[in-house]
Amino acid sequence: MQDLLLQDKMFSLMEELFPICRSITGQGLRDSLSILNKYIKTFDNNLDLNMHSTLSGTQVYDWTIPDEWEINDAYIITPDGNKICDFKKSNLYVLNYSIGIDKDVSFNELKEHLFTRQDLPKAIPYNTSYYKRNWGFNIDYNTFKTLKDGIYHVHIDAKHKKGELNYADIIIPATIDTKEEILFSTYLCHPSLADNELSGPVVFATLIAYVNSLKTRKYNYRFYVGPETIGAINYIHKNLDGLKENVKAGLVLTCLGYGREFTLIKTPHENTLIDKVAQHILKSKPIFFNYDFTQNGSDERQYCSPLVDLPVACLTRIKFGYYKEYHTSLDNLSHIEKDVLYDSYSTICRIVDTLEVNDTYISTKVCEPMFSKYGIYKKNDTTFWRPYHVFLNALCTGKLDIMDIADKLHIKAYELKDSVELLKEHGLIKKI
Amino acid sequence: MQDLLLQDKMFSLMEELFPICRSITGQGLRDSLSILNKYIKTFDNNLDLNMHSTLSGTQVYDWTIPDEWEINDAYIITPDGNKICDFKKSNLYVLNYSIGIDKDVSFNELKEHLFTRQDLPKAIPYNTSYYKRNWGFNIDYNTFKTLKDGIYHVHIDAKHKKGELNYADIIIPATIDTKEEILFSTYLCHPSLADNELSGPVVFATLIAYVNSLKTRKYNYRFYVGPETIGAINYIHKNLDGLKENVKAGLVLTCLGYGREFTLIKTPHENTLIDKVAQHILKSKPIFFNYDFTQNGSDERQYCSPLVDLPVACLTRIKFGYYKEYHTSLDNLSHIEKDVLYDSYSTICRIVDTLEVNDTYISTKVCEPMFSKYGIYKKNDTTFWRPYHVFLNALCTGKLDIMDIADKLHIKAYELKDSVELLKEHGLIKKI
Amino acid sequence: MQDLLLQDKMFSLMEELFPICRSITGQGLRDSLSILNKYIKTFDNNLDLNMHSTLSGTQVYDWTIPDEWEINDAYIITPDGNKICDFKKSNLYVLNYSIGIDKDVSFNELKEHLFTRQDLPKAIPYNTSYYKRNWGFNIDYNTFKTLKDGIYHVHIDAKHKKGELNYADIIIPATIDTKEEILFSTYLCHPSLADNELSGPVVFATLIAYVNSLKTRKYNYRFYVGPETIGAINYIHKNLDGLKENVKAGLVLTCLGYGREFTLIKTPHENTLIDKVAQHILKSKPIFFNYDFTQNGSDERQYCSPLVDLPVACLTRIKFGYYKEYHTSLDNLSHIEKDVLYDSYSTICRIVDTLEVNDTYISTKVCEPMFSKYGIYKKNDTTFWRPYHVFLNALCTGKLDIMDIADKLHIKAYELKDSVELLKEHGLIKKI
Repeated sequence: MQDLLLQDKMFSLMEELFPICRSITGQGLRDSLSILNKYIKTFDNNLDLNMHSTLSGTQVYDWTIPDEWEINDAYIITPDGNKICDFKKSNLYVLNYSIGIDKDVSFNELKEHLFTRQDLPKAIPYNTSYYKRNWGFNIDYNTFKTLKDGIYHVHIDAKHKKGELNYADIIIPATIDTKEEILFSTYLCHPSLADNELSGPVVFATLIAYVNSLKTRKYNYRFYVGPETIGAINYIHKNLDGLKENVKAGLVLTCLGYGREFTLIKTPHENTLIDKVAQHILKSKPIFFNYDFTQNGSDERQYCSPLVDLPVACLTRIKFGYYKEYHTSLDNLSHIEKDVLYDSYSTICRIVDTLEVNDTYISTKVCEPMFSKYGIYKKNDTTFWRPYHVFLNALCTGKLDIMDIADKLHIKAYELKDSVELLKEHGLIKKI
Repeated sequence: MQDLLLQDKMFSLMEELFPICRSITGQGLRDSLSILNKYIKTFDNNLDLNMHSTLSGTQVYDWTIPDEWEINDAYIITPDGNKICDFKKSNLYVLNYSIGIDKDVSFNELKEHLFTRQDLPKAIPYNTSYYKRNWGFNIDYNTFKTLKDGIYHVHIDAKHKKGELNYADIIIPATIDTKEEILFSTYLCHPSLADNELSGPVVFATLIAYVNSLKTRKYNYRFYVGPETIGAINYIHKNLDGLKENVKAGLVLTCLGYGREFTLIKTPHENTLIDKVAQHILKSKPIFFNYDFTQNGSDERQYCSPLVDLPVACLTRIKFGYYKEYHTSLDNLSHIEKDVLYDSYSTICRIVDTLEVNDTYISTKVCEPMFSKYGIYKKNDTTFWRPYHVFLNALCTGKLDIMDIADKLHIKAYELKDSVELLKEHGLIKKI
Repeated sequence: MQDLLLQDKMFSLMEELFPICRSITGQGLRDSLSILNKYIKTFDNNLDLNMHSTLSGTQVYDWTIPDEWEINDAYIITPDGNKICDFKKSNLYVLNYSIGIDKDVSFNELKEHLFTRQDLPKAIPYNTSYYKRNWGFNIDYNTFKTLKDGIYHVHIDAKHKKGELNYADIIIPATIDTKEEILFSTYLCHPSLADNELSGPVVFATLIAYVNSLKTRKYNYRFYVGPETIGAINYIHKNLDGLKENVKAGLVLTCLGYGREFTLIKTPHENTLIDKVAQHILKSKPIFFNYDFTQNGSDERQYCSPLVDLPVACLTRIKFGYYKEYHTSLDNLSHIEKDVLYDSYSTICRIVDTLEVNDTYISTKVCEPMFSKYGIYKKNDTTFWRPYHVFLNALCTGKLDIMDIADKLHIKAYELKDSVELLKEHGLIKKI
């Protein structure tokens, strides 16, 4: 598939997901997961997300699975009879997870329930109230400042009910016998927000197709998507032992559709496999922000919490909270840079390629092999003065992995794939 | 107590100590120790230095405790009948630890016993002859160059006698049950010299009051003061086993009253607790010279000698020997910068605070705690976008200590004290 | 011996070796080894290279010892009757290790057997065909471009025959009882090429004399010289167990007669003794290229191959392949800088001195020794304000070696030799 075609396809998925009113539970989340599943099936009809749920009220570590939220409509009628904050025009107008309400209130009372951003007067901000029942509206400051004293009618046709928290996963299996896993995790709980919400799932779903298309995989690839924070906590609660035993590297995907830079939030240890692989790939990008774990903010907070301690980093372009449109109606489809979205996907594919090629080998011959005997001396697969595989053979000391060797050659590990295969084929190196 | 009041109080102590003629043994040293004790009692009448002594002639490792030195007067009468080098005008005029003498000498003989500094013609230099009996005078070059041939009368009313070497210590105990100690060490043996002598004891004595004022202490604090070199060797000789078992960090205090910079002389290992704490505090100072052990010169030479091997660094402002007034009469009270002296004290207090707060913790919850449940999510004690304790909880991995975490947050460890207490109080972290 | 005299003597050796037509086997190699032996005997008549040989056809790991090559003459007669590529004028004209031939060939056929360098039109390039039988001539491009269609007569009076591969070694023994060895290795197989061939053996032979002249040696010094690649492989094959057990550091010597810079090719591990010693000495050179093992190219390829894994680095001035004259007739005697050749020798002598002085010591006294008691306080062998041995004693912690301490003092380890001896003599430090 051509890059531009795939770019368009990725953006179309985002367009389809954008209008849905999601929250951490409820129908919007279920609909979104279905759309993701439909998308991956266009690449391979055998692909199928496993849809899971956990009942409201279930205790997951320090937390409780919340009720489902159902919302149909919401608006305010001003004293002049105008309808404002109309949910049908933007689902951002309602405080996400708001309780239902239908009554007249004074302006003074109303003001306690209005959330606005004076610094971005045209923007509807995005606010939630998940763990403290409240009602409210998000309102752009330009409208807010026209409001006067008087009696307002507030209407939110919403309710909370016992139900379930939904999430999905899929495992693309290794082509060898191994239990080792790579984890990709993203979240889906914000309503109509583009970069800080949908860029993650779009890249994630396309990455499922990429990993599925690989002829060989030495890892199992686990892809998980659910609501942020509570979803990840629930997923860890369900799978902790297996994750701790098998996950060798993982990446949380978010904010991948806007900004030229790449931003890595390393694990607290800063020296796990994903830290090394991600830095190996990203360090030659024109702009690379290499942050420590104090910059955390998404589900790496759960995966890397000290008693969970999975080797999971977080990858973004311009980081959540670092661009002004973040968590407002300005983070919409027109905010997305399609080529950036595609480039994020393609860079993560190179991370996958690096995970696949990387290993530690030792040469099998005492002294240099007589390469000409194997007919592989002249096979110059490189711009160096000797073929890469000659250097590679010399550096397969059993102490350096393929990334270390690639770093010394000022190339990327995945560029050594053919050389690794060539030496293995002739029995000149073996994995240790 | 206000900073300025304490500044003045510290300087007054220095003024009281300045005129006394000290040496490595004798009455001047005993008087000085008494004045220090009187000073600390003004903060808390229960504080009392333990006064100790070791007899002259006692063997301490490679060294022998010297005799006491008694001096009453000293001067030279020139051929013209003028009295110069008058001990009563400055105790620096006499070679410290000089033998007694009273005779006529030719100028040629006299010159062998005169010590001067041509580069600082107004200054009386400070010289000693502790381990080779000699007589002599220190003389400013301006006076020296007026001297002519002829017969001079030299008079030094001094003698050496069996006696004792005096020193003092005090332990401010931990408020928990522990044998672990922090050592502060300073020296007191130079006569009327201000920065390179008295700044150390003044800061030291004030620090005793600070440590004593702490509500909790997780370490015992040992403060030792005695003559340089031989005093420290004697103190180690008396206490080696206990010091080696209990001292977890230590600091030699000297030259703390002059110069904007901070200078650290690290231990030979460069990676002990005091190296880490001192660098953590000092690295954000406007000027910080971070020296290795080749820059040693005071009692860290004994504490860090290879078979003693205590984790003791040395802290100064501008280093001994690095300012021209060093070891001359120009290092007098007018040379002292009162605010620098106070700032040295206050910086060492922050080192103490850091030692007290630093520990390695691990979070107790699987996944992030639901902070709102504990009512501590909104308690924003920080300029960060989330409260410090949220970051702290995430980084209490059991591998990073509080200094490591503070470094990542670009703050100082002692600034995390409230957050540490808050998380401990709610059972969210535990010490490992 | 004066430096300039030794410079001249070294250059004379190169002049004697230069005209000989060497290859990886044969009489030229044997003659060259004899000349080297004659040279070292001028320093000490007891010195004698051990001459060794391995029979053609012997299997050495992945390789086979090649036949001997005998060559008497070679030339081309052009259609105009001119003799070109005359071996008697330069042995570079013949493809090294060429088979014999004597026939008329068309220009088209001839061109397949001519090797030229268009970028260096005056230079005869150096090419070989060791492991694929072929005939050919190396020809300067200026001559090549005058050649026209027609019948050429090619004549190479050469043959291959069963014989032997020759090499030599010598061990200068330690003056203490030890099996530990330092290895110096160089190669001798190129015909008339000066820097990239003869500079190595010339420095190597002079270094034998230097090491032999040392009054004490704590290592055995093994010097090996033979043809590049196959010689080293054969030498390793003969001596692997002993080399692996005893060699503590080694250096391949090549390209030491041209270029102001020093170039080190570190071992793959980058942290062995020779890596540390060489960097200690070279880092203060005006120009120092400190390369990793991807820059390998000479016999370090064999010594450092993963299953051999000897701690052997490679030292050059401007590196093989990094100067345009490399492997052409322009790398001749006039290309050699005599002072550079000497400076290379002298720098390697300092590496030897450093290996000899370096050790890890611990002080023997508790607290600082009373240096004046030993009469060694005033012995100031330094520009520092205290004698080196005072610093040295303080830093002999048992954790730092003499190089580490010298680095802290901003001097070289061998400059501490007298101080080390002084402290040892007085029993103030002991080796650990």
